[in-house]
Amino acid sequence: MENSNSSPQPNAAPQIFVLRWGHRPQRDVRLTTHVALTARALCASGFILSDVQDPHIQETVVKITKAWGGNFYFEMGTPWKRVVREWKAKGGIVVHLTAYGENIQASDVMGRIKAVNKDVILLVGSQKVPGEFYSSEVSDFNVAVGNQPHSECSSLAIFLDRYFEGKELAKPFEKAKIEIVPKERGKLIKTT
Amino acid sequence: MENSNSSPQPNAAPQIFVLRWGHRPQRDVRLTTHVALTARALCASGFILSDVQDPHIQETVVKITKAWGGNFYFEMGTPWKRVVREWKAKGGIVVHLTAYGENIQASDVMGRIKAVNKDVILLVGSQKVPGEFYSSEVSDFNVAVGNQPHSECSSLAIFLDRYFEGKELAKPFEKAKIEIVPKERGKLIKTT
Repeated sequence: MENSNSSPQPNAAPQIFVLRWGHRPQRDVRLTTHVALTARALCASGFILSDVQDPHIQETVVKITKAWGGNFYFEMGTPWKRVVREWKAKGGIVVHLTAYGENIQASDVMGRIKAVNKDVILLVGSQKVPGEFYSSEVSDFNVAVGNQPHSECSSLAIFLDRYFEGKELAKPFEKAKIEIVPKERGKLIKTT
Repeated sequence: MENSNSSPQPNAAPQIFVLRWGHRPQRDVRLTTHVALTARALCASGFILSDVQDPHIQETVVKITKAWGGNFYFEMGTPWKRVVREWKAKGGIVVHLTAYGENIQASDVMGRIKAVNKDVILLVGSQKVPGEFYSSEVSDFNVAVGNQPHSECSSLAIFLDRYFEGKELAKPFEKAKIEIVPKERGKLIKTT
């Protein structure tokens, strides 16, 4: 992740990167695109599509970032093990989103994650993830956004909304060429 | 919506139903399934797939509800105009989720919706929605879960999480045959 400063620094707010595992090109294009755009819109710093290449996802993410602003890192194809190993070597932690983990509402897991105060990789699976994901060698925390089956997209959205305490949804994006002006009725777009 | 009590009652907490508009059978199956499962997991009372039939969605939602518990209403094929008309005649309100609406974080729109204290239909679009959706004849509120492009699935999840103040994620589901026991590591399932 060359274009982002991922080493934890005093005074710098921790950053979150999303690692999407288990993407199947074609079948998962729309869902993974939604996951990537959710990461960007909710102020994660970047998105890594691990283990596979999918130019459709990259194209959409790059196009949206160019038009709607902000710096959003994109990477694809790197094996997840290497991403995790290098991340940990730099002092970051890994949080695995899974319906089997500690409940984000019923436990104090979010407080413990924030207390660590380090950059986070959020592991977002799709189909059945490797058993290693649950182990302490990979994940520092296993977090369940509720223990019911639903959607990795929704889990990611709620995790980020709670991690950033809602502020991420009102943050302006730098260098935006297109911006929505919120309205009670109708649509208003500002372009520069 | 015969199997749910949708008339506002004193002392009864308002219910939320999700109306998904613009579903394209086949192309949207996975995304719409995620939207429906998010609605269920985050304690909406039911899901209406308007204007089209898609037995794949119904099958998944019914199967999940049977195994994982709770009462979750499912309906498909009804024209959205009829759903909205009948809903309003019964005293419910309509909230349209759209990136163009009032920002859920930067405005007091959530407070105003809750102050109305009535049952809600959440209109969730997909591709370009009819212009009427923004008008007061249809939507009492147009709400943006951030004004950046991302995902209807994520918008729905965050709206419900905020509306129910997080409590929905720790709520047990009645008559569940399968239940996850949250854990720091590994997977634990309880079946009855």
